Amino acid sequence: MELLTINNVWMMICTALVFFMHLGFAFLEIGLTRQKNTLNILFKNIFIITTGLLLYALVGFNLMYPGFADGSSGIVGFAGFGLSSPLTAEGALDLAYNEGYTYWTDFLFQGMFAATAATIVSGAVAERMKILPFMIFAIIYVGIVYPIAGSWKWGGGFLDQLSTPFYDFAGSTLVHSVGGWAAVVAVCLLGARIGKFKKGEIQAIPGHNIPLATAGVLILWLGWFGFNGGSVLSADPELTSLTLVTTCLSAAAGGVIAAIVSTIMYKNLDLTMFLNGILGGLVGITAGADQMSPTDAIIIGAIAGAIIVFAVSLIDKLKLDDPVGAIAVHLICGIWGTLAVGLFGNLAGVDQFISQLIGVVSYAVFCLSTSFIIIYTLKKTMRIRVSEKEEVEGLDVHEHGMDAYPDFRLNEH
Amino acid sequence: MELLTINNVWMMICTALVFFMHLGFAFLEIGLTRQKNTLNILFKNIFIITTGLLLYALVGFNLMYPGFADGSSGIVGFAGFGLSSPLTAEGALDLAYNEGYTYWTDFLFQGMFAATAATIVSGAVAERMKILPFMIFAIIYVGIVYPIAGSWKWGGGFLDQLSTPFYDFAGSTLVHSVGGWAAVVAVCLLGARIGKFKKGEIQAIPGHNIPLATAGVLILWLGWFGFNGGSVLSADPELTSLTLVTTCLSAAAGGVIAAIVSTIMYKNLDLTMFLNGILGGLVGITAGADQMSPTDAIIIGAIAGAIIVFAVSLIDKLKLDDPVGAIAVHLICGIWGTLAVGLFGNLAGVDQFISQLIGVVSYAVFCLSTSFIIIYTLKKTMRIRVSEKEEVEGLDVHEHGMDAYPDFRLNEH
Amino acid sequence: MELLTINNVWMMICTALVFFMHLGFAFLEIGLTRQKNTLNILFKNIFIITTGLLLYALVGFNLMYPGFADGSSGIVGFAGFGLSSPLTAEGALDLAYNEGYTYWTDFLFQGMFAATAATIVSGAVAERMKILPFMIFAIIYVGIVYPIAGSWKWGGGFLDQLSTPFYDFAGSTLVHSVGGWAAVVAVCLLGARIGKFKKGEIQAIPGHNIPLATAGVLILWLGWFGFNGGSVLSADPELTSLTLVTTCLSAAAGGVIAAIVSTIMYKNLDLTMFLNGILGGLVGITAGADQMSPTDAIIIGAIAGAIIVFAVSLIDKLKLDDPVGAIAVHLICGIWGTLAVGLFGNLAGVDQFISQLIGVVSYAVFCLSTSFIIIYTLKKTMRIRVSEKEEVEGLDVHEHGMDAYPDFRLNEH
Repeated sequence: MELLTINNVWMMICTALVFFMHLGFAFLEIGLTRQKNTLNILFKNIFIITTGLLLYALVGFNLMYPGFADGSSGIVGFAGFGLSSPLTAEGALDLAYNEGYTYWTDFLFQGMFAATAATIVSGAVAERMKILPFMIFAIIYVGIVYPIAGSWKWGGGFLDQLSTPFYDFAGSTLVHSVGGWAAVVAVCLLGARIGKFKKGEIQAIPGHNIPLATAGVLILWLGWFGFNGGSVLSADPELTSLTLVTTCLSAAAGGVIAAIVSTIMYKNLDLTMFLNGILGGLVGITAGADQMSPTDAIIIGAIAGAIIVFAVSLIDKLKLDDPVGAIAVHLICGIWGTLAVGLFGNLAGVDQFISQLIGVVSYAVFCLSTSFIIIYTLKKTMRIRVSEKEEVEGLDVHEHGMDAYPDFRLNEH
Repeated sequence: MELLTINNVWMMICTALVFFMHLGFAFLEIGLTRQKNTLNILFKNIFIITTGLLLYALVGFNLMYPGFADGSSGIVGFAGFGLSSPLTAEGALDLAYNEGYTYWTDFLFQGMFAATAATIVSGAVAERMKILPFMIFAIIYVGIVYPIAGSWKWGGGFLDQLSTPFYDFAGSTLVHSVGGWAAVVAVCLLGARIGKFKKGEIQAIPGHNIPLATAGVLILWLGWFGFNGGSVLSADPELTSLTLVTTCLSAAAGGVIAAIVSTIMYKNLDLTMFLNGILGGLVGITAGADQMSPTDAIIIGAIAGAIIVFAVSLIDKLKLDDPVGAIAVHLICGIWGTLAVGLFGNLAGVDQFISQLIGVVSYAVFCLSTSFIIIYTLKKTMRIRVSEKEEVEGLDVHEHGMDAYPDFRLNEH
Repeated sequence: MELLTINNVWMMICTALVFFMHLGFAFLEIGLTRQKNTLNILFKNIFIITTGLLLYALVGFNLMYPGFADGSSGIVGFAGFGLSSPLTAEGALDLAYNEGYTYWTDFLFQGMFAATAATIVSGAVAERMKILPFMIFAIIYVGIVYPIAGSWKWGGGFLDQLSTPFYDFAGSTLVHSVGGWAAVVAVCLLGARIGKFKKGEIQAIPGHNIPLATAGVLILWLGWFGFNGGSVLSADPELTSLTLVTTCLSAAAGGVIAAIVSTIMYKNLDLTMFLNGILGGLVGITAGADQMSPTDAIIIGAIAGAIIVFAVSLIDKLKLDDPVGAIAVHLICGIWGTLAVGLFGNLAGVDQFISQLIGVVSYAVFCLSTSFIIIYTLKKTMRIRVSEKEEVEGLDVHEHGMDAYPDFRLNEH
């Protein structure tokens, strides 16, 4: 009982920290985009966390943890609508549910993760996607696609049943790549912002509020204490504390290396690259944070930091317009972190690496196809992009009829 | 001993989270008002949290938990000035004080609540109330009125002694309505901001920093993990985790329903209404967060969300100028949440509903009359409203001689 | 095992809170300076937390906790590069390491402290120091000076071996003064910002974002729950909860007294002074937070608050230009708090006071001389100050080629 109580306290705190990541995402996304679309971005973020929780209660939790029957394919299962807490014979909550947390904590912790995938997409499509189709996409993706994809591993599905099970500790793939693949699809179907690629040249569109972007990254890093620390699913002293150490060292290494590489390449001390390097390190360590030594963690983070600089440049060259670097951070570093489990730490080995590859490919196929079907359908039925006039004048005025900073004089652009 | 340690850890974390709500309140209040009054609002918020804690140590804690004697009326009691920790025979802190927390944690957790009531008023009187009378009001209200009112239920006073005791788990009434009633009085005695009601028309006065307002709401939501989660007064796994689930689902439902209703009524996607709907859901669930099922919580939050939209409109029509929607959020949803305890969940029933009504009316009478006496006296003796010139030019310059954003060019208005 | 688990949970939460202080420092520092140097300040802060953690893993932790041999002088020791966790015979992490935390938690909690010292200096040198020499200084100071200094007390060094051991609970001296002494040296060697002392007059250079400065202080206060609460090094219910109470009451008293004193002296309600008073109270209580009664804490905080007002004025008169008041807050109040351990609370006494004085002087000598050597060498070899043109136009454009707020129209100055 005491052990359950302490484990559950830890898990509730981690839940609160993951919840707080939604402020981090919101700050990062508005900070790296233009002021004229600020309110629109905040609306999307608030929409995602509220709707996401309700959807996860209605269908998501039971899609993600369906209790696959023996012999099932482990691809889709559903334990029924709504939440139904396990009860003892006396009608109290059955605390034997798990020694690490109660049923309620389990739901809420996982629910806080669910919204994240859509938030990643929100960043990639910022400043030009109509809000109604985005909301419809987010509902379907958070409510159905994410939990089904999650069930394959965390729900005991087919990737968990491989002879060498696929491993994704806290979601480099299950959360970050799932968001990242949809971001790729959305960016391709949506096209670049006006002015981003002018006469074949890449134009930087600077973010309007760097203090909030920086705060966003520090809040996300704080949230990762809960994201990874809570993924131990108990307060086990060794695993939780090792996880926090690997998480922080990978973040630090990712930031430092991204800053160094980008300084060498571009000759300026680019804070944005430093920040995205930190996020890359965080995403990169997430798949194996409980399986790595500090040295492994630093190497994984450092490679993630280097990847960020090259990936951001590559995505630009591919004429994909991703205003906040979501694809580089969440998809590319998510893949890297997932594969790194087969290369470093306790699980390293050929079999594991192959399982990791199988996992990455499985999620790529599922997420690319589902998000394509959703977004393409939306594009054909209701348009997904705002008009040129709306884009130039800003989504805040046109979609919401309000300004984010009405008392300040603003530059035109 | 281990159980006390874990319970106490949970309570200390919840204390920290409730403390952090003061940043949430500050951000929300400045975000929804004009930049020229920003520093003034921040000063008030900093004043409230610091002075509030000192007053609670000096008198509040012992007014709120006086240890009513048997047969006392349970209306006012006082256990003496200052803090006096219970000691064992050996002079150490007596840990038998409570199995959920130490004496020190008890004081600090409750102290963090105390300042909240005045903060609610701060929002309602923003942009026009002189700071000195506000500070005097806050001292009296936080130091004396709030703890006496709180003693009626949480201190074991007469509302706790009803045959069917009044129930207010975490303060829909004891905290939020107590602030809300005073906000009504203050708004009435103070009058509307210049320009708010012009020629009978209601003029929107847009808030100057929507990112900070949004951050404020997310920080408040985070703080509510502690506000409600800590009100279990131990780390009981079932109750704490259920409370967090009902809290989050009610917040989510409040936001979504407020957004939908306001979109239907006003045809624009109003982020402010979305945010206030979340707060309405949080206030609404607070009285019974530990007694509700998830479904109850969603219904309570949804109704709170709808209430917000209509209440904001009604308050406008009554020509009450409440810049941040404090009355709608804290008073109206506070009353709703208190009554909802008699309608939903484990305690639902006619007797309970009547007790809840008795509670609501008792607090209304006490808070309306005490805050009227205080504020009316201040109005007659020292004026409570800044001059027209000061109001137009902003309180920052006139009350503090400083600007909040001196490097930015600002619009006149 | 359960006790270790709960202790470790508390320590991990405190670690997270101390980590979050870096956002508080960043917000405070940018808020109190001009917008044209915002990005530069954020870059420094991000640099410090990332590099600081890596350095602490590489050398700092083992310099600070070298395990001084019997009979050693207790001045410098080094347990070897990198982290090496204690293992059981079976190769698992040895949980007998400490009953309050695991090896990993120990490293991470201490690592979060390490970066703080450099952050303090960052504030004092803001708006005019070149970033490259600052980074070099920070690397040496965080990587080598801070941990050696820390070993003298927390590593069991000579100050811990005095017949009446020097006492510094959570770092009034070991963290705050260590940063503060270097700030003094840096400010002297660097000179004042252009325009700060014009024709013998002191010119106020107002900070550009007071909401973020205020948020910074509230975030720092929140972080202090972990800074002081975690310095108990376990979740002991009595000590942790007492520590939080003394910490909060001292902060509150510091703020209120600073506000009162500055209002009397300068006739305006100065929010900045209020905020620095809170920080002064926090720094002041830090050396003895676990040894004081609430009344002691209020007195210590109140004196710290008064000190702040006079110290800020004195430092101005000495023509030392410290844009954020770092010397007054961290050095002067750090010294005050350290001496206060000999005057108030459980340890008060002549012997203790003398030991406290010995400690203060030891750190003064060591930190002044090491920071002088480092910064003077940097000044002679690579210049430490930006050019006049760069200073006038801002470090953001010149050091980073970016603006912090490109969408806003700004005032020239």
